Amino acid sequence: MDTVQAERRTVGWAARDASGILSPYMFTLRNTGPDDVYIKVLYCGICHTDLHMAKNDLGRSNYPMVPGHEVAGQVIEVGSNVTKFKVGDAVGVGLVVGSCRNCRACKSDIEQYCRKSIWSYNDVYTDGKPTQGGFAQAMVVNQNFVVKVPEGMSPEQVAPLLCAGVTVYSPLSHFGLRESGLRGGILGLGGLGHMGVKIAKAMGHHVTVISSSEKKKEEALEHLGADEYVVSSEESQMQNIADSLDYIIDTVPVFHPLEPYLSLLKLDGKLILTGSIATPLQFLSPTIMLGRKMITGIFIGSIKEMEEMLEFWKEKGLSSMIEVVDMDYINKAFERLGKNDVRYRFVLDVAGSKPHITQ
Amino acid sequence: MDTVQAERRTVGWAARDASGILSPYMFTLRNTGPDDVYIKVLYCGICHTDLHMAKNDLGRSNYPMVPGHEVAGQVIEVGSNVTKFKVGDAVGVGLVVGSCRNCRACKSDIEQYCRKSIWSYNDVYTDGKPTQGGFAQAMVVNQNFVVKVPEGMSPEQVAPLLCAGVTVYSPLSHFGLRESGLRGGILGLGGLGHMGVKIAKAMGHHVTVISSSEKKKEEALEHLGADEYVVSSEESQMQNIADSLDYIIDTVPVFHPLEPYLSLLKLDGKLILTGSIATPLQFLSPTIMLGRKMITGIFIGSIKEMEEMLEFWKEKGLSSMIEVVDMDYINKAFERLGKNDVRYRFVLDVAGSKPHITQ
Repeated sequence: MDTVQAERRTVGWAARDASGILSPYMFTLRNTGPDDVYIKVLYCGICHTDLHMAKNDLGRSNYPMVPGHEVAGQVIEVGSNVTKFKVGDAVGVGLVVGSCRNCRACKSDIEQYCRKSIWSYNDVYTDGKPTQGGFAQAMVVNQNFVVKVPEGMSPEQVAPLLCAGVTVYSPLSHFGLRESGLRGGILGLGGLGHMGVKIAKAMGHHVTVISSSEKKKEEALEHLGADEYVVSSEESQMQNIADSLDYIIDTVPVFHPLEPYLSLLKLDGKLILTGSIATPLQFLSPTIMLGRKMITGIFIGSIKEMEEMLEFWKEKGLSSMIEVVDMDYINKAFERLGKNDVRYRFVLDVAGSKPHITQ
Repeated sequence: MDTVQAERRTVGWAARDASGILSPYMFTLRNTGPDDVYIKVLYCGICHTDLHMAKNDLGRSNYPMVPGHEVAGQVIEVGSNVTKFKVGDAVGVGLVVGSCRNCRACKSDIEQYCRKSIWSYNDVYTDGKPTQGGFAQAMVVNQNFVVKVPEGMSPEQVAPLLCAGVTVYSPLSHFGLRESGLRGGILGLGGLGHMGVKIAKAMGHHVTVISSSEKKKEEALEHLGADEYVVSSEESQMQNIADSLDYIIDTVPVFHPLEPYLSLLKLDGKLILTGSIATPLQFLSPTIMLGRKMITGIFIGSIKEMEEMLEFWKEKGLSSMIEVVDMDYINKAFERLGKNDVRYRFVLDVAGSKPHITQ
């Protein structure tokens, strides 16, 4: 393997402290173990979580930290037990790179809910060393946590599917909301929301975007293909779609009242939370009870769901709206992401950026 | 029909104002229409809702009001189109005595969620006249809203099943929680909670009662057959059952924090609200998301579910703990119910009480 050295030094972009400013960082990857896959990172999406973690917004960040958990790459080397992949394969890596493999979640192929899951960065691997994410030239990942990418998909399109995409695909799939003709609401039109519109439309749903302002109306209807656009503060617009939705995917990552959205759901409708919010959310029990409605939430998606979703994405010929940027744009990208100034996902061109992998 | 006069006068016990004090009240029932069943009331359970309605706690009570929506009775007369029942049949009546028959809820046999459902009292029937409930000698009810009672069941046992019983049966049945071996929590041990323990145990579940005090521990374990008893304020007891329950039936009808109970649920666990609470309830989104948990709620049960539940109850040979009282005890019963001083349901012996039906 001429591309891989014994020392396995690689270069990433790391945050050094809670300023969240990233700079080049050279670190050592573990050797490719029997079950490991050594991956050259091609592209990596930028998720709000990366920004939060880099800035220690959740108070549990360790530095230096190489963020990144929407990784599209290529297999460079495989361990002796690896059967799922071969050199040259297109692959993906998401947020989870390890789990106990024994609990109910693991045995049900929803390892993202394993209490001992290991995150692709800012976590500690089984060897005791910190994990580092996809804002780096290479990663070494256990084959069970590497996602098969269908042939012919462009890796920059694959990247943001591995968190944003699967986070909306997973609940639709899990909660029995795949059938054509359903009426769905997408609350909030950011990275997740735009994936939500794409995926729900591809499932044949009637999709209503619910947003706090008119700003994205034309784009939602004209470019993303949404069927309706409702401004949440306009009572008459909200009233028009009362009791009409089978589900709402709620992508709003800050406190918001749930009552107005619950009232849009029809009998047995589901409000699906995808944003981790520190402030308690509120609702009235009769709103739920009198329509047998449901408030639930999900956390990303499993490896299996990622693979299913990629097949679905390819089969439907979908494409997401992304802004591909160089690695050295990362700090500017973080700044813009903090202001929601992106339509709709930044994707880092890792392999195309200097510095190249150190050999 | 020698028991039925053209005038169809009957005697009930009515509240006259928000004092909620009941006194004998003579009123006219409609004639038995082609689709109607004329029912002699034998027993009627007393539910908290009756107390709230009698006292105008929800601000929408009309007087005089004859409460009662857990009615066990006998068919005295049937209309010409009635095929489901014949004279002498044992029957039941619950909270809903009419609905649109056309909406999705009605067509799915969950007429309790119909937006135009008509309640058995404090409502207006299709003829424009007020409905009056089961604290009366007789009722006239459309056959579609009359519940078939399996042969051999004692009517005083049937009565409280028609609201309290079906309110716990319905969610277990609807949310796929019938299989043996599940671990269930019953939060609050009142009229509903005690039915919850009985029904969940009969389904083969491991049942934990969660209560605010030790008071009912012996009774729950020794008499009702619960497997465990946890005092919610005792952190170590709560910790012991963290992440262990497939569902919790939450029967608490006043504000309470949900977070402690959500943490008892395992992956995909369901918190099922059965109490209409005026104050908003709160939860943290990560608690839900990181275990794909669900907050939901239901409103009583359908006619179909009542009939299913009665068959289940009979087949399993269950019996509930009730306190049978005379009609003239009603005001005292209301007073005691207001203090939760009943184990676990008052049932009025309507037919056995004076004044008898006026002929």
